[in-house]
Formats: sequence, C-alpha cells, structure tokens
Amino acid sequence: MSTTRYPFPGLQDLPEDIRTKILEVQDKAGFVPNVFLAFARRPAEWRAFFAYHDALMVPESVGRKSGLTKGEREMIVTTTSAANGCLYCVVAHGAILRIYEKKPLLADQVAVNHRKADISPRQRAMLDFALKVCNASDQIEDADFEALHAHGLNDEDIWDIAAITAFFGLSNRMASFSGMMPNPEFYLMGRIPKPKA
Amino acid sequence: MSTTRYPFPGLQDLPEDIRTKILEVQDKAGFVPNVFLAFARRPAEWRAFFAYHDALMVPESVGRKSGLTKGEREMIVTTTSAANGCLYCVVAHGAILRIYEKKPLLADQVAVNHRKADISPRQRAMLDFALKVCNASDQIEDADFEALHAHGLNDEDIWDIAAITAFFGLSNRMASFSGMMPNPEFYLMGRIPKPKA
Amino acid sequence: MSTTRYPFPGLQDLPEDIRTKILEVQDKAGFVPNVFLAFARRPAEWRAFFAYHDALMVPESVGRKSGLTKGEREMIVTTTSAANGCLYCVVAHGAILRIYEKKPLLADQVAVNHRKADISPRQRAMLDFALKVCNASDQIEDADFEALHAHGLNDEDIWDIAAITAFFGLSNRMASFSGMMPNPEFYLMGRIPKPKA
Amino acid sequence: MSTTRYPFPGLQDLPEDIRTKILEVQDKAGFVPNVFLAFARRPAEWRAFFAYHDALMVPESVGRKSGLTKGEREMIVTTTSAANGCLYCVVAHGAILRIYEKKPLLADQVAVNHRKADISPRQRAMLDFALKVCNASDQIEDADFEALHAHGLNDEDIWDIAAITAFFGLSNRMASFSGMMPNPEFYLMGRIPKPKA
Amino acid sequence: MSTTRYPFPGLQDLPEDIRTKILEVQDKAGFVPNVFLAFARRPAEWRAFFAYHDALMVPESVGRKSGLTKGEREMIVTTTSAANGCLYCVVAHGAILRIYEKKPLLADQVAVNHRKADISPRQRAMLDFALKVCNASDQIEDADFEALHAHGLNDEDIWDIAAITAFFGLSNRMASFSGMMPNPEFYLMGRIPKPKA
Amino acid sequence: MSTTRYPFPGLQDLPEDIRTKILEVQDKAGFVPNVFLAFARRPAEWRAFFAYHDALMVPESVGRKSGLTKGEREMIVTTTSAANGCLYCVVAHGAILRIYEKKPLLADQVAVNHRKADISPRQRAMLDFALKVCNASDQIEDADFEALHAHGLNDEDIWDIAAITAFFGLSNRMASFSGMMPNPEFYLMGRIPKPKA
Repeated sequence: MSTTRYPFPGLQDLPEDIRTKILEVQDKAGFVPNVFLAFARRPAEWRAFFAYHDALMVPESVGRKSGLTKGEREMIVTTTSAANGCLYCVVAHGAILRIYEKKPLLADQVAVNHRKADISPRQRAMLDFALKVCNASDQIEDADFEALHAHGLNDEDIWDIAAITAFFGLSNRMASFSGMMPNPEFYLMGRIPKPKA
Repeated sequence: MSTTRYPFPGLQDLPEDIRTKILEVQDKAGFVPNVFLAFARRPAEWRAFFAYHDALMVPESVGRKSGLTKGEREMIVTTTSAANGCLYCVVAHGAILRIYEKKPLLADQVAVNHRKADISPRQRAMLDFALKVCNASDQIEDADFEALHAHGLNDEDIWDIAAITAFFGLSNRMASFSGMMPNPEFYLMGRIPKPKA
Repeated sequence: MSTTRYPFPGLQDLPEDIRTKILEVQDKAGFVPNVFLAFARRPAEWRAFFAYHDALMVPESVGRKSGLTKGEREMIVTTTSAANGCLYCVVAHGAILRIYEKKPLLADQVAVNHRKADISPRQRAMLDFALKVCNASDQIEDADFEALHAHGLNDEDIWDIAAITAFFGLSNRMASFSGMMPNPEFYLMGRIPKPKA
Repeated sequence: MSTTRYPFPGLQDLPEDIRTKILEVQDKAGFVPNVFLAFARRPAEWRAFFAYHDALMVPESVGRKSGLTKGEREMIVTTTSAANGCLYCVVAHGAILRIYEKKPLLADQVAVNHRKADISPRQRAMLDFALKVCNASDQIEDADFEALHAHGLNDEDIWDIAAITAFFGLSNRMASFSGMMPNPEFYLMGRIPKPKA
Repeated sequence: MSTTRYPFPGLQDLPEDIRTKILEVQDKAGFVPNVFLAFARRPAEWRAFFAYHDALMVPESVGRKSGLTKGEREMIVTTTSAANGCLYCVVAHGAILRIYEKKPLLADQVAVNHRKADISPRQRAMLDFALKVCNASDQIEDADFEALHAHGLNDEDIWDIAAITAFFGLSNRMASFSGMMPNPEFYLMGRIPKPKA
Repeated sequence: MSTTRYPFPGLQDLPEDIRTKILEVQDKAGFVPNVFLAFARRPAEWRAFFAYHDALMVPESVGRKSGLTKGEREMIVTTTSAANGCLYCVVAHGAILRIYEKKPLLADQVAVNHRKADISPRQRAMLDFALKVCNASDQIEDADFEALHAHGLNDEDIWDIAAITAFFGLSNRMASFSGMMPNPEFYLMGRIPKPKA
C-alpha cells in the first residue's frame, strides 16, 4: 500500500495563517483534508496553491462571477484527475461533486467514462475540452473554442475550464508523486442523504 | 446521458432456463443486474457468457479450486475494467469487490490507480500482470511469469488472472459499445455496514 | 522460439463430449487446431468458449441468421487479431478467411493494413468499427453507429461486429499469454487451389 | 499564425501591485514577458501564479534554499515544456537557461532530446524523473526516488523537481490553450555574448 | 480497395539505365516488382533509392561484408515494415525472407509478433533493436548497444540493423502514402517447394 | 553528454569523390557539417544518401522543378525531425530554414509546435500532412490528399512533402542511433543579420 512519502508537519509547527485556515476547514468539514497538511511543509507553496485554488474554484472569494456552476467545476476536476490517475483528487473532488450536484452516482460515472455520465450536452462539451487541455493542450485549435461557443459558453468560461484543468493537473502530479492518500471520509460523502437534524 | 442502445427483452419472453436464472439472481440480490437482461436478447450468447463467467469466477461450480480468493478475482475485474473505461463493470464489480474484501475503499482505489491501493505485494503483482494482459498481451514474456512465481503464484493461478482479464475484456467491450449502464443499486453496495436484522 | 507454456492434455484424458467434438474437427480439417487442445485442460472453459464461438461464428447452429457473411466474420477476426498481435488467430483465421472469400491475398492485406485491402466500402466501415471496439471501446459513440447504418448495416449486424471483436479479443489474449502457436497447416490453407479429385 | 486568443489588458488598468511588479520586470529585462500581461486579466490568478512561481524558482525569496541550481531548475522547465509542446515556455525558459548555465547550445538540446544534451549524469536523472512526472505521474514508484538518491539528490530536491514540473505543466497548458506567444526578444537571449559596456 | 495514386510510367519512357535494370529484374524474378516502376517516375530518386538499397541489402555489390545473413536482413525489413503497417514491404520482403531462410512460416510470424517467431535469441535481440530504431530512435541508449554486444553483434552489425530499419522506414512511408500495392506473385513465393526441373 | 558512437574517418582516407564534395561544402559553409563525415565511413551509403538528398532538396540539380519553396522544404525537415526527436536535423536544418525564409524565429516555432508558427495556411496543411507521413503513414487516405489540393498543392508537391519526410525519417534514425551531434556553428546561424561587407 502506498503511503505519503513526505511526513505531515504538526499543526503546532505551522505559521499562524496556515494553522488558522486549516482549523477553519476542520471545523467546517469535520476533518482536515490531507492536501492541507501535505503541502503545509512548504508554507509559501501552500499559500500560492490555495490562493490559486480559491481564485478558480471559489471565484466569489476574489470578486469574480463564473459562468460555470460549482458542480461543473468539480466535474472538470474529477474527470481530468481520473485521466491523470490521481487517487486523491478523484476521491476528494468526486465527493464534493456528489454534494454540489446532489447526484450520488455522477462522480463514479465521470471518473470511469464521462461519455456515459448523466450530464447535459453542454457539460459533455466542457469535459471533452477539459480532457484535451489535460492530454493534448498543444493541439487546441479554434475549432475547440467554436465547439464550446456552440453550447453558449464564452471565452471567460473557456478560460475557467482550461485553468481548472491546468491547476488540477498540477495538483494531480503533486499528489501522485508524493504519495498523498485521500482521507477515508471522502469515499462515502454525498453518497447517502444526510440524516436530518 | 448514455442509455442502452439495445432495449431489454421482457422476462416473459425469455427461454425458461434464462428466466429461471434471472429470477434466482433477483431473489438473491434484490434486483436484476442489467447484464442479465442486456445479453438475454441473444440466448445462446447469454448462456455461453454466463457459463464462461461461472467457470472463471465461481470455480467451485465447475469442480475446480482456484488459488485466487474471491476478492482477488474481483480486484482483477475492477482494475482492468477501469483500464478499459467500462462504467458497468467498474461499478458492478467494484461493489462485489467491496463486499468480498470487506474493504469499502478498495474498489475506488484500484479503479483509479492500483499502485495506490491498499493491497498486498502479491496482489499488486497480480494486477500488474492483469493490466499487461489487458493492454499488451502480445508482449507477455517469461519474465512476466517469473515475477508472479516469485510471489508464490503458480501457472494455474496465472491462467486464472489472464483468463479473468480476457473474459472481462470481452464483457467491457460489450457493455461499452451497447451502452449498458450499471444499476443504481451497485454504486452504494459494500460502502456501509449492512443494517443488522 | 515461443512454445506453449501449458502442455496439452492427451485426448484420452478428456471428457467424452470434448473428445468427440475434437475428433469431429480432426476428421473434417485433417488436423486438430491447437486451440481445441490448449483450452481442453479446463473443460468448463472449453465448453463455454466454443459455445460462445459457435453462437457468433456459426449463427445457424443456434437458429440465428446474421447479416454478415461468413467471410466478413473472419475478416473481422483477422483484422482485430492482428491489431492485438495474436499470431495464432491471425494465421488460423486468415486461413479460413482465404477459403471463405476465395481470395488468397485478402488475409495478408487485412492483417497488415485493412485500409489497403481489396474489400468493399461496407467492409471497410465494418473493420473500422471493429478496430474501434478492439482499441477504444469506451469511445464508441452514436456517430459510429450512424457510419455503419449508412452502409446498410443494422443494429443486429453491429452487435455481431462488436461481439465477434470482443470474443476474439478474449481469444487473442488467451493465445498470446499462453504461448499457443498456430498449427503449421494453417499457413498455406487457401493460398493455392485445391487439387481436383 | 497563432496569436493570443485573449487580448492583454492595458498597464494603466491593472491593480497597483501588479503594475508595479510588471514595471520592475520591464526595467530589469528591457521588455515585458507576455506571461505577465496575459495572466493580468485575472489579478487573483496572476498573484497566485507568480507567488507559486517565485516559491519554486526563486526559493531565496521565500527563505528557502534549494539543492538544485538555478540552471537546473530552468533545464527542468525547458525539457518538460517541450514535452508538452508549449512554445512560450520553451522559448522563454530556454533563454533563461542559456543565460544561467552560460551554455548557448543547451536549451535547444534539452528541448529536442535531453538524452543528447551536454549535461551531467545527475542532471540526466533529474530530467528523466521530471519527464515521468510530466507524462506519467501516476506511475511514479519508489524506484524512481531511489534512482535520484543514487545521484545524491534528497527528498527535498525531488519535491523541487516534481513541483517545478507540475507548476510548469499548468503554465504550459495555460499558454498553449490561450495562444500566448513568446516575445521575440527571448529567441536570441543567451546565444551570443553580451556586448561589453 | 486501395490502388496506386501515381500511375506507373511506361518502360519505353524510362532512361536507359533504369530500363535495363528493370528488365534484368524481370528476367530474374519473372515479373517486375511494383517498387521498380512506382519510383521510376522520378529517375534521380529511383537511382538513389536502389543504390542505397543495394549498399545495405547486397553489401557484396559495394565490396562490403556484413555480419548479418541475407535472411536476417530480410527479417529486419519484414518486422519493421509490419510495425509501420506497410503492406507492400511486408508482402514483398516476407516472400524474400521465406526464400532466403527456407522457412515458409517465418515471415508471417515476424510480421504479426516477432516474440512468437521461430528465431534465435540473437535474432530476437536484433529485431528488438530494429523495432526501437523504428519506433523510438530518439531513445536509443548505450544499454541497447550492450544488449546486442552480448549476442556477439559488433558496432558494424548494429549500424547494419539500424540503417536497414531506417532505409525501409523511408520505403514504407513512400509505399503507404503513394498506394503502392504488392505484386500478387509475392504472396505465395517461398511458401511451397519449387517444382523440380 | 552524448557523443558519436562511430568515429569519423580522416578526410585523407576518403575516396576522392567524397573528399572533393566535402571540401566544397567546407569551402562554402566554413565548416564541415558532421553528417558528411559521419556517413563517409561507408562510401556507398554516403553516395546514395547525398544523391537522394539532392534529388529531393536541390531538385534543380536533377533537372526537376518543385512546387515547394526551398524554405518550405526545410520547414518540413525541421518539423518532422523534431517529431522524431533528432537533435542533429532540428539544429542543422533549423539553421538552413532560418536562412532561406529570413525568419529568425521560425525554426524554433515549428520545432516546438508547428500550430503556433508564423506560417501560411498552405504551409500549415503541408506540415500537418508531413507529420502524418512521419507518424502514421499507414493511415494516409484520400482525404489527406484532398486537404492539400484545397490549398493548391498538386500530386507532385504531395510526393515532395512525403518523400522529404520519409528521407529525413531515415536521416533522423541514423543520426539518433549513431549519436551524431550537430556542429556548434548551426545553433546561431540565421538568428542575427549577417554583418555587411
């Protein structure tokens, strides 16, 4: 079994801003996703990574509105992370995708074969483009943009699709090379209805 | 969304032996896995398919003992079906894998990247070999056999690994081309403890 | 030189039904094609394999009529077996293809490059589809079906093409991994006119 | 000819911190590398991108010492960017590589075929690893780490190689998809001795 | 069916030296292999092509002795031409291979899967190297040379293997792009014993 | 660092015709490109190689007019040599391309990604075709010819594109396997205006 090749730092050894953010996440999610600890050994990289993450995945946090829904962003992450064979991102973002889209089956579908997934034609076009950015970005041509325009996606939306794919391509490579494993909590999240209070 | 390209026959229109087997499966599983209905439109192929399936996956049913455990057989199916991008088999056999191994996280692990899965070195070697049979069977050499012998697997075990991979390569192609979708029930099976009676 | 990794059982050690069938084949062909002996070491798999084979390749034997000719079925086998690098199936089924089509050059053509073969546009479309089922079944789309419909092939014909490809994908993997070599008799069959009686 | 698909913002329209940084770069380099303008249309992404860049490529700026030389870092960028077919990064970072290493031929060598480049065995091992992170990060194994350890590289150095590769994989995808072209000035930089003052 | 895209010139329209050579070949073989006519439309290229061919394949004609046998040279041609999907060269040189080696089964074996062919370990090593020159010449390393040295092949032999592979890579591309079809006579050559006079 | 695996012969040991030609080249270029020495160890191959080269690249020398410009021919060489990872040809022919086209940036562009290069649509189509001949000549179809006809290229031009690609595919394999390194002079040629007399 693979385990992380780089031990996690202790929370108490982290810079204040990072520790605070991690404790917030823990408070909200009930656990600390491993990526927060795995990257914290290099605080400057941690800060840049999460700033980039938030700029793309939480556009409101930087005063931007995205033409993609929250679920569509996670769909892109899950699909391209599977193409990159990244266990951490498929499991963690598959969980978030299930929750955002309220579709417990969707993450497994896009991870194995997005052509079989229960998604709209517009979403299918988004994922086709994302996979081309993931696998053959040097071959992107005007025709690829036109295929997305035909579904009502504009150039800002296309930037979003490409940038999310590119950013998680970075994340996938970091997670895979370093042996970062998904927290067990992610595997089941969003698969069953939350118990009512 | 993809749906099956070939309508399922009605149970009442099936030959007696096939209907009986399907009702037995329904009785045991609580639902009829789609593969039983999808293939039933061609009874002769249905009978051969399930006879082959049972000969490999339920060796006791043909008076044979296999050196692989039930869980190992399903591990091979799930891993190679993911390599073939077969949604039906990854979801259905991933479910059975979770149940047999009593490891709710394992199926997702081997489907995304078997190198990161919580398995033994012997199982890792089995899956490496299975993937070579799946992707490059023409390049199998003596060294591939020796790598398995080193883990205590004998030539009958190797036949099992190869034959299971080859058989589900058939199954993967049939499911993918025909648009066979996994039953929703499979997605959650084996992820949470069964409620006690 | 490669030789079989699994010794053939003696005819006298085989179950009655298998021995009978093998003797029939020998009677008709003048020799026993190695696949009959190679798989006989596992009788249940042997029976399922040949039942499946006959259901697809001898549809009359199961009361079905196929829209593909006998030659077209062998064309699919030869082409996809070459794509899988399976010596046994290319040589054995290439022989049968030559005989059925009465075209002594055809098998070598489709094995090396089906785009250069002396076949009809309909057959070219069949082989293009078969190769996609062989190499990228997860990417089969509606457009692939439409391309075949345009040549007058219906969904039953398409099932035949896909199933034959899938079944021989199994056969290719079994032959290659186990070191099954083609009988020398196959290489020359159908290349020269039979001497008249 | 390809041109950028996203018009550059005017300097006067940029946030103060970004404009200041860009003017500093212009002052130092004599021109503004297009990446600074291309990404500035999204200030939050710009800030995260360059923060990440500096954390990896100018480790001193974040109080870290790297076991890789400046030239080695650029070697990794140039080699993996060529593997990704990214014109901008090959040309821009090839220029910087020539300057840092004072080897006017090196960038062309690693871009076309790093196996033919005038580099040390340690650097060859670094580039082999970087290309594996670039092309097959899901297949990184302990043996890949050991190959680098054998050249005296430790796990922090390996993190550097992987992270630089992953970060520029992001950069490559962004540049390629958006049609970002290298500034003409880069092509000749470092190829001829600077004229003395 | 594919046919040549470039009509053959008439013998009477060819330069004297080319016509003479072609008539000699016809006299010896009983027919004119299509490559002689297909390339004759460009006499300068024809002369260079056959000069190169003879320098490599008939080394005695240029006063050189090769460490490879005639059969080994044709083995290399047949194997790499199959890898390039070149129908003309597989069929034509497969014929010559059968004749030189007096092994009627060999050409089909190396064309489909050289790993299964009835050849010596030294020949297997030669073909492995030839396929690497064919498919990934940029990755040839010292270890590839050493593997051949271990079988007693020296650097001149290795030059022969590489040059033959490279030359027929040219030939394969010319034949495939131009639609050059093998003469029907080749298919059967060397498969049956010559009738005695 | 890679160096040539085959020592160059001394000029004084070469046959008269080869020595003369080499001295002419040296006189004109100011140095002897390594390919002239590397291949001279086998005079018959040297003569055929350069005869073929001139027939394709200097068509006037054999009384032929080509529809491609000198620059277009070098564009094809540089692009396909990069696809083959051949350092010698990318650097040497990139130099000649810069000189012929008087575009100092062009060679780097086509070597890294011809889709981003400053070329005409006709040239883009030529390079697309050349890359298909380079990478998948067995898949060339009528549609590939039609795409070139649409740009006013006729079948003789297409023969030129294919033959240049095929010939340099040979050259690339010879250079890469034998460790032939580009002369340092090539790297800078055509990048800066020639000093006026």
